[in-house]
Amino acid sequence: MNFRLISSFLGVVAWLIGVTMCFSLPWAWPAWGGQAEFERVGSIALLGSIAVSVLVGLLLRYLGRTADGAPYRKEAMAIVGLSWLLATLLGGLPFYLSGTAVGVSVDDPTEVVQMSFVDCMFEAQSGFSTTGATVLTNVEDEELVPRCILFWRSSTHFLGGLGIIVLFVAVLGHGSAGKALMRAEMPGPSKQGMQERMQHTAWAFAAIYVALTVILTLLLKLEGRTTAQGTMSWFDAICHSFGTLATGGFSTYNDSVGHFHSPVVDYTIVVFMILAGTNFTLLYLVWLGKPGRLVRDVEWQAYIGVILVVTAVFIVVGMTWAHDFDVQDTLPPGKEFFEALRYGLFQVVSILTTTGFSTHDFDRWNQFARAVLFLLMFVGGCAGSTGGGLKVIRHVLFVKILGLEIEQSFHPRVVRHLRLGGEAIADSDLRKQILLYFGLIAFIFMLSWITLVAVEGDDAWTGRGLSLDNKLVDAASAVAATLNNVGPGLGTVGATQNYSIFDWESKLLLTFLMMLGRLELFAVLVLLMPSFWRSR
Amino acid sequence: MNFRLISSFLGVVAWLIGVTMCFSLPWAWPAWGGQAEFERVGSIALLGSIAVSVLVGLLLRYLGRTADGAPYRKEAMAIVGLSWLLATLLGGLPFYLSGTAVGVSVDDPTEVVQMSFVDCMFEAQSGFSTTGATVLTNVEDEELVPRCILFWRSSTHFLGGLGIIVLFVAVLGHGSAGKALMRAEMPGPSKQGMQERMQHTAWAFAAIYVALTVILTLLLKLEGRTTAQGTMSWFDAICHSFGTLATGGFSTYNDSVGHFHSPVVDYTIVVFMILAGTNFTLLYLVWLGKPGRLVRDVEWQAYIGVILVVTAVFIVVGMTWAHDFDVQDTLPPGKEFFEALRYGLFQVVSILTTTGFSTHDFDRWNQFARAVLFLLMFVGGCAGSTGGGLKVIRHVLFVKILGLEIEQSFHPRVVRHLRLGGEAIADSDLRKQILLYFGLIAFIFMLSWITLVAVEGDDAWTGRGLSLDNKLVDAASAVAATLNNVGPGLGTVGATQNYSIFDWESKLLLTFLMMLGRLELFAVLVLLMPSFWRSR
Repeated sequence: MNFRLISSFLGVVAWLIGVTMCFSLPWAWPAWGGQAEFERVGSIALLGSIAVSVLVGLLLRYLGRTADGAPYRKEAMAIVGLSWLLATLLGGLPFYLSGTAVGVSVDDPTEVVQMSFVDCMFEAQSGFSTTGATVLTNVEDEELVPRCILFWRSSTHFLGGLGIIVLFVAVLGHGSAGKALMRAEMPGPSKQGMQERMQHTAWAFAAIYVALTVILTLLLKLEGRTTAQGTMSWFDAICHSFGTLATGGFSTYNDSVGHFHSPVVDYTIVVFMILAGTNFTLLYLVWLGKPGRLVRDVEWQAYIGVILVVTAVFIVVGMTWAHDFDVQDTLPPGKEFFEALRYGLFQVVSILTTTGFSTHDFDRWNQFARAVLFLLMFVGGCAGSTGGGLKVIRHVLFVKILGLEIEQSFHPRVVRHLRLGGEAIADSDLRKQILLYFGLIAFIFMLSWITLVAVEGDDAWTGRGLSLDNKLVDAASAVAATLNNVGPGLGTVGATQNYSIFDWESKLLLTFLMMLGRLELFAVLVLLMPSFWRSR
Repeated sequence: MNFRLISSFLGVVAWLIGVTMCFSLPWAWPAWGGQAEFERVGSIALLGSIAVSVLVGLLLRYLGRTADGAPYRKEAMAIVGLSWLLATLLGGLPFYLSGTAVGVSVDDPTEVVQMSFVDCMFEAQSGFSTTGATVLTNVEDEELVPRCILFWRSSTHFLGGLGIIVLFVAVLGHGSAGKALMRAEMPGPSKQGMQERMQHTAWAFAAIYVALTVILTLLLKLEGRTTAQGTMSWFDAICHSFGTLATGGFSTYNDSVGHFHSPVVDYTIVVFMILAGTNFTLLYLVWLGKPGRLVRDVEWQAYIGVILVVTAVFIVVGMTWAHDFDVQDTLPPGKEFFEALRYGLFQVVSILTTTGFSTHDFDRWNQFARAVLFLLMFVGGCAGSTGGGLKVIRHVLFVKILGLEIEQSFHPRVVRHLRLGGEAIADSDLRKQILLYFGLIAFIFMLSWITLVAVEGDDAWTGRGLSLDNKLVDAASAVAATLNNVGPGLGTVGATQNYSIFDWESKLLLTFLMMLGRLELFAVLVLLMPSFWRSR
């Protein structure tokens, strides 16, 4: 293992984090953040964190000063896994140093409860992994959460999303899902070498990501007049844009996007969540003037198909027997339809793309709808996007493989190839890889679920006045929402709740799951294997 | 497809069912069944069912009169799948013709609710698949359920268990779990041919199965004096013996084995459930005087390990913070320990072996224990036993495969073999097969769960005074309990409840799942594929 090389790479990551933190500083001033006075503690915490990041970066670069050679597979895995770990540690610093508060004590509302070290890790990991799960109970009170720290929280989404798109997707490829899509050739003139091409791809993807973020920010700022508040600050526009394009889900309001009460904002964010969950290779091809490639893509068709079908089902169920969108049964059918479309579509897209914004309390929906949302978490966005979950393509292949294998059980000698969009794909190892991925996810899910149920006391339910009957489902949803980088789950971690009530052991487990899911398991799992470190 | 051959085989199955029904007839007489008077309707229903079975058998034999050749893989799969379907249809007849009652109406206790056609299918499938899930709410009242019909219900367990051991295990091998154990060579002198050897194995296994059933019956009869009733009828002894050795779980009492209030009976049944969940090849080797083979078997070690560890955890959790076995907190620690051991061990073994008997209302245990029981359902007994679930060996291999594949992700060129008990096993296709099996189970489980949640109305919970919060977990447990052939699940299908309240659509789904799980998926799934029937 070339430790020097790894150290050298990690040093750059530390610097990158330090540089990004600088952009949160301006929001400490009332002129930018909109708060009453200058945030002294918040800005000092940020400056301290920047200093630490720079120093850590210097130390790591120093340790890796004699590094040479290019990273092999093992080094690449270690770099990805460890840089995420490093980012979590450094990214949690501003929360910790500023004494950002989880909220006020339940027993005594004058007593402020500050974030523990684990809380800070949780929040930072949630940001970088673009999960959007939070332990903060009140982000609107700048006494509890300084504005500049809140901006840093949203920045972690931006940086995490950029890291995924550039490092994980463009440079490293992306696991079994990526393998199947290798035929959807990476953009870039074909005469170039592999190295040059990857660089080209990385720059192109980064440009698309940044461009979309800027466009959405401008749109949201413009659409501010349609909100209940009649305006939207740059602060809110930027933060929600970060949350959307990274499929993260951190909001600057306790009611998430629902705070704005604007159908225009809702639909705009829906469109950009869909874009963020789309394979960036396809977005690049659209940019190059080949929109046909997007429309004909099997994965994208399945992705849009799931959104349309599930939304239609939610509207039908909601308007016939469940009355999820018209609880008092007072709306005329036309109005009820548009309510169902608006809230149903938003929630389906938000959960499927693993963003996790909410505009409606889906925990009050019927049990079937809640179960569907739970399953959607595992679907996720398209491969090569910032979306989490298992990715749509893996599900498409999974179902095809199951069918082929059942057929092979009675025709053992007839070998049929896996086909995608009419094209046969070379699948020597792919079938096993896809099945393995589902097996690993199922195994990790079950193990984490039973651990969470064992570790977490009953008071995470009884303490909030929720029935203990919910424990098994809510715990399962908490695992699913973190492992798939969604954010909110059901019940005690649902749309109107958060993760603050969990014990630190549970939070640590969920922090680990967010990292695991974000890096598609392997880059994290290998770090746990002694043989990974021993061997050369 | 050699339909004549299939028809000829199915004819024998129909006759076998007819013959078995004859053994239920004597229990219509008060001298045998212990009821007040001769059961005219019950015995006529049985006679009618026997007549139908014989006639159907004749018809099928007639259709297959010119059959020749031996069954190939496809025919063998069709025979197994279709004979289970035929058994369900014929086995449900006695319930239907006798007008056996689900129970009395909730609104009017004088009104008797008879079993519907789907109820009869459900009960028969539950019997043959050795699941033990029931729709009968009161089996103790002979006005509702004639004794001879109740005996038939338990007989279906016996016949189903025999069918699995002889047909599925000895003759057909048993899927990916069996493949891995092929080195645990099938008993029988090695000079014999394959055909002869299979016959020998089948006879040996049948003999062990029947012998264990007889021994347990005698033991239970003898132990009758230790029960709360001071005695046990032959009827009860035989029926519970059938339920135990088949890992079925139908009881002749509403309180299941708990009815007897006897630790001696409890522990005896525990021992025989463990035996029933053991690979019959190993039992045969013990019979041949080689107990070392049993003790050194990797799967059996894991199986016993799971029982011991989970029981220990239940005792510790139950005695420290949960007080599951001492609700009023009045027992001295010594007594509490023995209570916890007795009820904890029984329930762990009952669920793990997929028997489904109960002596304690485990729905009142803590949520962690309930979650563990839920997961245990998927583990199941050993391969080559009457136990259901995924089988212990598949889990052992699954975990090993995950470890090997994670290692291979950073050492792609180093191929390490799968090892079992120190021996490398030829795994060219086995890794994919095991992963495929887990993938299929997960897929079927999720699909069935969401279907059940959608189809089943909320009144299956609200109608019993249960909170709707339970719907998602209870529905999941109902799917798990039928797919893995356990029987009772959690909540509304828990130890003290039953499946009677479900809609007929749900019952049909669960009936299908019982068959699917029992035949390890493939023999049933292929029946649904048009290409299976088209091709030759």
